[in-house]
Amino acid sequence: MEKKDLTELLQKVADGQTTVDEAILKLKEAPYEDLGFARPDFHRELRQGAAEVIYGAGKTPEQILKITGSLREHGQKTVLITRMKKEAADLMLKEVKDFSYDELSHIGIAGELPEKTGKGKIVVATGGTSDIPVAEEAAKTAEVYGNEVVRLYDVGVAGLHRLLAHKEDIMSARVIIAIAGMEGALASVIGGLADCPVIAVPTSVGYGASFGGVSALLSMLNSCASGVSVVNIDNGFGAGYLASMINHIE
Amino acid sequence: MEKKDLTELLQKVADGQTTVDEAILKLKEAPYEDLGFARPDFHRELRQGAAEVIYGAGKTPEQILKITGSLREHGQKTVLITRMKKEAADLMLKEVKDFSYDELSHIGIAGELPEKTGKGKIVVATGGTSDIPVAEEAAKTAEVYGNEVVRLYDVGVAGLHRLLAHKEDIMSARVIIAIAGMEGALASVIGGLADCPVIAVPTSVGYGASFGGVSALLSMLNSCASGVSVVNIDNGFGAGYLASMINHIE
Amino acid sequence: MEKKDLTELLQKVADGQTTVDEAILKLKEAPYEDLGFARPDFHRELRQGAAEVIYGAGKTPEQILKITGSLREHGQKTVLITRMKKEAADLMLKEVKDFSYDELSHIGIAGELPEKTGKGKIVVATGGTSDIPVAEEAAKTAEVYGNEVVRLYDVGVAGLHRLLAHKEDIMSARVIIAIAGMEGALASVIGGLADCPVIAVPTSVGYGASFGGVSALLSMLNSCASGVSVVNIDNGFGAGYLASMINHIE
Amino acid sequence: MEKKDLTELLQKVADGQTTVDEAILKLKEAPYEDLGFARPDFHRELRQGAAEVIYGAGKTPEQILKITGSLREHGQKTVLITRMKKEAADLMLKEVKDFSYDELSHIGIAGELPEKTGKGKIVVATGGTSDIPVAEEAAKTAEVYGNEVVRLYDVGVAGLHRLLAHKEDIMSARVIIAIAGMEGALASVIGGLADCPVIAVPTSVGYGASFGGVSALLSMLNSCASGVSVVNIDNGFGAGYLASMINHIE
Amino acid sequence: MEKKDLTELLQKVADGQTTVDEAILKLKEAPYEDLGFARPDFHRELRQGAAEVIYGAGKTPEQILKITGSLREHGQKTVLITRMKKEAADLMLKEVKDFSYDELSHIGIAGELPEKTGKGKIVVATGGTSDIPVAEEAAKTAEVYGNEVVRLYDVGVAGLHRLLAHKEDIMSARVIIAIAGMEGALASVIGGLADCPVIAVPTSVGYGASFGGVSALLSMLNSCASGVSVVNIDNGFGAGYLASMINHIE
Amino acid sequence: MEKKDLTELLQKVADGQTTVDEAILKLKEAPYEDLGFARPDFHRELRQGAAEVIYGAGKTPEQILKITGSLREHGQKTVLITRMKKEAADLMLKEVKDFSYDELSHIGIAGELPEKTGKGKIVVATGGTSDIPVAEEAAKTAEVYGNEVVRLYDVGVAGLHRLLAHKEDIMSARVIIAIAGMEGALASVIGGLADCPVIAVPTSVGYGASFGGVSALLSMLNSCASGVSVVNIDNGFGAGYLASMINHIE
Amino acid sequence: MEKKDLTELLQKVADGQTTVDEAILKLKEAPYEDLGFARPDFHRELRQGAAEVIYGAGKTPEQILKITGSLREHGQKTVLITRMKKEAADLMLKEVKDFSYDELSHIGIAGELPEKTGKGKIVVATGGTSDIPVAEEAAKTAEVYGNEVVRLYDVGVAGLHRLLAHKEDIMSARVIIAIAGMEGALASVIGGLADCPVIAVPTSVGYGASFGGVSALLSMLNSCASGVSVVNIDNGFGAGYLASMINHIE
Amino acid sequence: MEKKDLTELLQKVADGQTTVDEAILKLKEAPYEDLGFARPDFHRELRQGAAEVIYGAGKTPEQILKITGSLREHGQKTVLITRMKKEAADLMLKEVKDFSYDELSHIGIAGELPEKTGKGKIVVATGGTSDIPVAEEAAKTAEVYGNEVVRLYDVGVAGLHRLLAHKEDIMSARVIIAIAGMEGALASVIGGLADCPVIAVPTSVGYGASFGGVSALLSMLNSCASGVSVVNIDNGFGAGYLASMINHIE
Repeated sequence: MEKKDLTELLQKVADGQTTVDEAILKLKEAPYEDLGFARPDFHRELRQGAAEVIYGAGKTPEQILKITGSLREHGQKTVLITRMKKEAADLMLKEVKDFSYDELSHIGIAGELPEKTGKGKIVVATGGTSDIPVAEEAAKTAEVYGNEVVRLYDVGVAGLHRLLAHKEDIMSARVIIAIAGMEGALASVIGGLADCPVIAVPTSVGYGASFGGVSALLSMLNSCASGVSVVNIDNGFGAGYLASMINHIE
Repeated sequence: MEKKDLTELLQKVADGQTTVDEAILKLKEAPYEDLGFARPDFHRELRQGAAEVIYGAGKTPEQILKITGSLREHGQKTVLITRMKKEAADLMLKEVKDFSYDELSHIGIAGELPEKTGKGKIVVATGGTSDIPVAEEAAKTAEVYGNEVVRLYDVGVAGLHRLLAHKEDIMSARVIIAIAGMEGALASVIGGLADCPVIAVPTSVGYGASFGGVSALLSMLNSCASGVSVVNIDNGFGAGYLASMINHIE
Repeated sequence: MEKKDLTELLQKVADGQTTVDEAILKLKEAPYEDLGFARPDFHRELRQGAAEVIYGAGKTPEQILKITGSLREHGQKTVLITRMKKEAADLMLKEVKDFSYDELSHIGIAGELPEKTGKGKIVVATGGTSDIPVAEEAAKTAEVYGNEVVRLYDVGVAGLHRLLAHKEDIMSARVIIAIAGMEGALASVIGGLADCPVIAVPTSVGYGASFGGVSALLSMLNSCASGVSVVNIDNGFGAGYLASMINHIE
Repeated sequence: MEKKDLTELLQKVADGQTTVDEAILKLKEAPYEDLGFARPDFHRELRQGAAEVIYGAGKTPEQILKITGSLREHGQKTVLITRMKKEAADLMLKEVKDFSYDELSHIGIAGELPEKTGKGKIVVATGGTSDIPVAEEAAKTAEVYGNEVVRLYDVGVAGLHRLLAHKEDIMSARVIIAIAGMEGALASVIGGLADCPVIAVPTSVGYGASFGGVSALLSMLNSCASGVSVVNIDNGFGAGYLASMINHIE
Repeated sequence: MEKKDLTELLQKVADGQTTVDEAILKLKEAPYEDLGFARPDFHRELRQGAAEVIYGAGKTPEQILKITGSLREHGQKTVLITRMKKEAADLMLKEVKDFSYDELSHIGIAGELPEKTGKGKIVVATGGTSDIPVAEEAAKTAEVYGNEVVRLYDVGVAGLHRLLAHKEDIMSARVIIAIAGMEGALASVIGGLADCPVIAVPTSVGYGASFGGVSALLSMLNSCASGVSVVNIDNGFGAGYLASMINHIE
Repeated sequence: MEKKDLTELLQKVADGQTTVDEAILKLKEAPYEDLGFARPDFHRELRQGAAEVIYGAGKTPEQILKITGSLREHGQKTVLITRMKKEAADLMLKEVKDFSYDELSHIGIAGELPEKTGKGKIVVATGGTSDIPVAEEAAKTAEVYGNEVVRLYDVGVAGLHRLLAHKEDIMSARVIIAIAGMEGALASVIGGLADCPVIAVPTSVGYGASFGGVSALLSMLNSCASGVSVVNIDNGFGAGYLASMINHIE
Repeated sequence: MEKKDLTELLQKVADGQTTVDEAILKLKEAPYEDLGFARPDFHRELRQGAAEVIYGAGKTPEQILKITGSLREHGQKTVLITRMKKEAADLMLKEVKDFSYDELSHIGIAGELPEKTGKGKIVVATGGTSDIPVAEEAAKTAEVYGNEVVRLYDVGVAGLHRLLAHKEDIMSARVIIAIAGMEGALASVIGGLADCPVIAVPTSVGYGASFGGVSALLSMLNSCASGVSVVNIDNGFGAGYLASMINHIE
Repeated sequence: MEKKDLTELLQKVADGQTTVDEAILKLKEAPYEDLGFARPDFHRELRQGAAEVIYGAGKTPEQILKITGSLREHGQKTVLITRMKKEAADLMLKEVKDFSYDELSHIGIAGELPEKTGKGKIVVATGGTSDIPVAEEAAKTAEVYGNEVVRLYDVGVAGLHRLLAHKEDIMSARVIIAIAGMEGALASVIGGLADCPVIAVPTSVGYGASFGGVSALLSMLNSCASGVSVVNIDNGFGAGYLASMINHIE
């Protein structure tokens, strides 16, 4: 409940148009808006057409279809669905006209991508090709939130020239997402090159002593480069969301 | 770009052989090609008086004194020294006039704090009073880099009203540093309240199954709130540096 | 063997109605009752109709059917079956009239729920919707043992208003079960709000550095709120059983 | 803000006694004051003379002396100080008349123990003699909160007869605190004997693969006995506090 | 090469019956034959009819059939096959007359069990019914090596009377194998009751913080009872083999 | 309560010599007295002069002196004190005539070593010289319990010839204690050579990824040699005690 | 240095405009300036027909077929494909004439093995038969890079004579790859016998406390033998590649 | 016992110059030489003046002095002492003329460094200045074994230009030792640049989630660069020894 609505409600009470009991009921039902703890500006953006996100894991195709429909009926123009299984995508492709699905990253998007409202470019870099699914989750999340994304895939440190060849992209980014499994050294090297915030995403790519991403996670937490922070293993969405947040800072 | 090259380039500009625009282009491109990679704009800031940092751990009092002197001779106005032992501080206090030392956070600062150049406010919040040394490392680092810092200490989630009483500070921050040991829940709760980037710093505060900060670290990495990223255990400096970087984004 | 039975037996020996050898045999066969180590009051309750529990994991449908039948023949009115697979439920549904099955929590109940004998209300709260299977195991266990249960699902700390909207339920509970995966912060926040015992149940919900529930487990063990204790990961039954025990304290 | 207050406020708006703007302000400010999240009944008890706790670790002797004085001036009759170092105790013994200190458990108590208000007895049992410091922290905490405590020390499972000799204490307890290091089996064995809640406290006692209490912690979390829950390693205070809470349930 | 053989060889050199070169060759080749490091007496026993063991995991049904045939052709009367899959057992049952298979423990035995040659009885005890597969691997291994085995299954410590009812078996055993998952307390309790060696076998039975047997393993390693040693998680064969070794000590 | 006693009691009831109430009382009280669970034969041995053990860690010099005196007054001829600090030893050396102390292993012995009553020899082998303190704890424990001990120190597998040179000792042992830190391979190699039980003791010797003995512990638990079992890290006493137990099997 | 530049440089040499020495200098310096960094000499070898490697995991059969074709068109004589699934092999076998596949090690090789260019022999030893898949990955990698490989399989330390029987192979190797799971002792024993570099490969073979290769990994890292280094768990390729590198040192 | 000596001995037996009994005795006493398990060529080198190593940790100053003297009396020209405490060095400096000590690396060397007999150069690189003590242990070890060492200290990946500035050293090395703590990325980056074997040494440098070197260790084991292998945390000696071994391969 925005301040405007609250003012209106109270005015109605003052004017006798609404009884005290009705007002109590309304104030009780609307707790999330009037207490307003949760990101209100962000919600407003959403109401203006940006993407509300559906975490697809553990939801049935029918549930996803239904929630998507409901969101769009309430005026949302773009709906992002993460960790979406193929079965769900198949149903959506059949039922929803402007739906697209990326099998690699398990990302589905209903509606068109919004305008680019971010201030600069977000670079999404990966150490290897196996990290691309996580990278696409990050990149598509950033795009759905209105950011221009530059993809630098397979630029791992074992072939440093591949990374250095993209020096200009790195230097001109507003925020960089560095995604790597195995030894996770990419974040440190990029952190040393760049002068913008670097969000490091460890991936579960690897075998043996990579322990499902622990090796890359520790490596990134211990980065000797300044300006690097870390999100959970394989958390492409979290990185994309945070990068967008930073890229929209005014 | 070596000094010789720079001289030559500037002479050509002086002689009209190179236009200013061409020279700018060269200077912008140069550092990465011939020397290098590392944060050049940032370095320029440093040369203009901002704080170069000395990592005090493992350095003798004499070494710290000498490096500080050298930095200031080269024109640096403020020198930040982290993880500085009391012995080193005692020597500095004796030898350096405008030096101040905070025993709690082991932070020493030579010179005056610079002007506030950050765009907004950085909130530094802690779960308990035992997290304050790490918090002060973060806060003082941010201040030395020209940021306004709001300190919210001892607002842990076990007494939620303490945190909620500062809702406005949280809602109006440009970036928040959430510092907590033990169960590290502060980052999630703040992440749920705020709509700006939250940098979570796990601390080694706690006992038993806190395992020197691992409990808080895992908690923060698994935060269900969006916009939260994590730095190493007790890494107040890293959080302060990154917060400043975000707060200076134009 | 209750004291009454023992008195009777010895009286018969004294009266010559039972020989010494027969008495020895009886005393030897009845060791569990006469030594009486195991929860006898509780057993009596059970014999009076409360639920004996069958741990369904690793038992064949036929075994479960047979044990259920046997328990009911001995007068038990309600039989709770935990971690029960669908195949077993299908057989039970076919063969047992008053059997019901909850696919989400893998809980089966044969017979009707007993009267509410608990002194107050047990609140079962979860951080997210994915924690509901564990929560239902806890809630149904508590119900089968004669407790009134209030369910507060999806009230995780990343949207604090959701939890605060149920403050009255939390304040009026006699015991609370706080169930959460990922960062497990719910237990601390509820522990800070409530003034009754809080049983924390970490769940294996999450990915990456949640390590199958370890993150939530450590978080809960390190809770800075007083009055919080912890059971094993995903142990909804254990929490429901303990909550009932506390709720029946006279 | 209780419903009554809300009704009153809205009535005033309806009556024109309060302007819309004033009402908005009140509704916005209210939540933190009137929600009053933290254990209010408990606080009242405290104000009536029960023990407020000072966590002594990391506080100077002077700070402890000052806080104790302040609490007593506000009418608190008993002050419990945990994890208190000998230096602090020495100062307190010198300055505070009715102060007593237990060097083993590092517990200090200023003032007299309150009346026994708990409903039943709390049994505090340990596996070995090395667990006694943690046990005394639990026992004294429980006593300071008005409970009768029965101490069963050194009744570890490797000599089962020692434990079985105290079967009646175990059977008649209202709540039991089972404290053990090394393999932590005590909690399971007591949990199997007793029919009341058992709070298990792993201790850091042991060497080698006990890993500072991890072995006992895991053992207790995996207890096959029902009614057992666990607190952090060495957390005697937490166990004593929770036991008192359960023992005061009406 | 025994001393006798060496003397003989050197005598032949002294006598000119063997040339220096031949002697060098013999001395060079000899060590592996004459040192004969690996359990020679034990091998002799095996050749005399005791069981050679086939580790079935990772072997094809045909390989197992073939090795079994080969061993029996060389005079072995009983062949033990551990961790044998049902497919392999099906082939064996079809092709080998005196073959028997236990699906629970995945143990196959070709030939008859040998005479009991052990000096006393081996007790195999388990905490729960889920530990029985590991227990049967241990028990059948011991039987194949000529031991009398007493099985005490489902005597876990959460119902202590179940274990105490078998006190006499425990007191009269020559060696005991204590098998348990979850909190693994059985080994300590039996170790405290018995005065013979106790071989503890942690099992991977459990969930959550049992971590595939780690909880039971640590518990057993930290047993406060003397006379307890531990083998690998689920290693029923190793325990049965070692128990037989101890039971055959003269 | 043995069968004989029970018969007698019941007979008295039948005879009217004992009332029913008295019998109930006796049956209720009896178990702890007459079952007498803990190692009674062993205790008898002890009373006949064998060593009772004092775990010296955490006991004051005065306590150790007093307990030793008390044990000897009750007729014990030899008293073993493990993990004894030098201060305690100094007091004992001053006060107790026939006391000896080994600074390396922190073992003190009051009284003379008993006769050799073990059936064979116990070999105590170590990988390196740094493992000797643990080895001496094991060896002296075994000696105090009446065993002949053969010490093979510094025979680690990196110089295999050192171990092979002692093949005869290994082949003729009745039980072997294999003690090693770092990679702990000694247990496997000895287990492969010997045909008697091998008790493996991991030590905390090593650095880096030895993790205080974890590396050796895991290595020993995973030994591919049969007949090997493991005790806790640095648990020389436990190994010596178990070895003695096996060596005394008749 | 692009092909065009190389052509130009060489033309200048041909024309006498650049001396050979100058050209050598340019060629030596070049790679790092324009393209760079990665192993140029090694690349040259590759261009001359040695094996380029395809990491088969995560690639479709069609992708593998296509890359193989492309490499061979560019003149590569032998193509090594690691971690290749059977489906991919089936396609390759159908489409590529000189392709061979080893199902055990999941290694495919297109083209003939090159000449032996290594200076000496590489010994590949395993502890057990289950380690052979990793060993074959190492061995075939070494062969594809032009090395003579001696295979010593199933020579684990629990039967030391098996290893000692091959002492001459071990003593005459230029580099040894020691591959073992479970306790991983093989590396230490071989390291103690040999005087050449030993590359240790832990395998995930084992169960229980082998933790997927962690036990062997720690064991090998802590090897008390000098000259031993370690690669990742199951990393046969890495070991084979490094062994070849050492075996080609001039 | 070399073949020559054996021939001679047997010839004497054949000639009657040596009796059979004397020959038996000799063969029995000489096991290490005639079986020749341990690195004989290497030992020969040592006898010719190269460095025998003393592991100083846990040895008294007197012991070190004595062993050094003994080695030199037997003709050794250079003695390397690792992990040597200052007290021991002080004694040595006083008693041994040509002794030198490096306090940083705790390395002592008695005698002069030998001639450079290695084939090429060994590069020792570190990520930071705090890694230098480990690096010096590696470098000095390599020098004592006759190698030319190039030191590249503080060339960590967070400032990539520092490393790239030494490209030629890296390209021309015969073997490289890459030493780093924290995130340990140096090994991967160097492994990607170089075409010679890289020995990675994780150090315990760092704090928080570096876990005493575990982060760097895992990072290095998971290196995506080929040709990299790893030794134990802080094991400078092991790396130096292996590097020398590789550098001496003919």
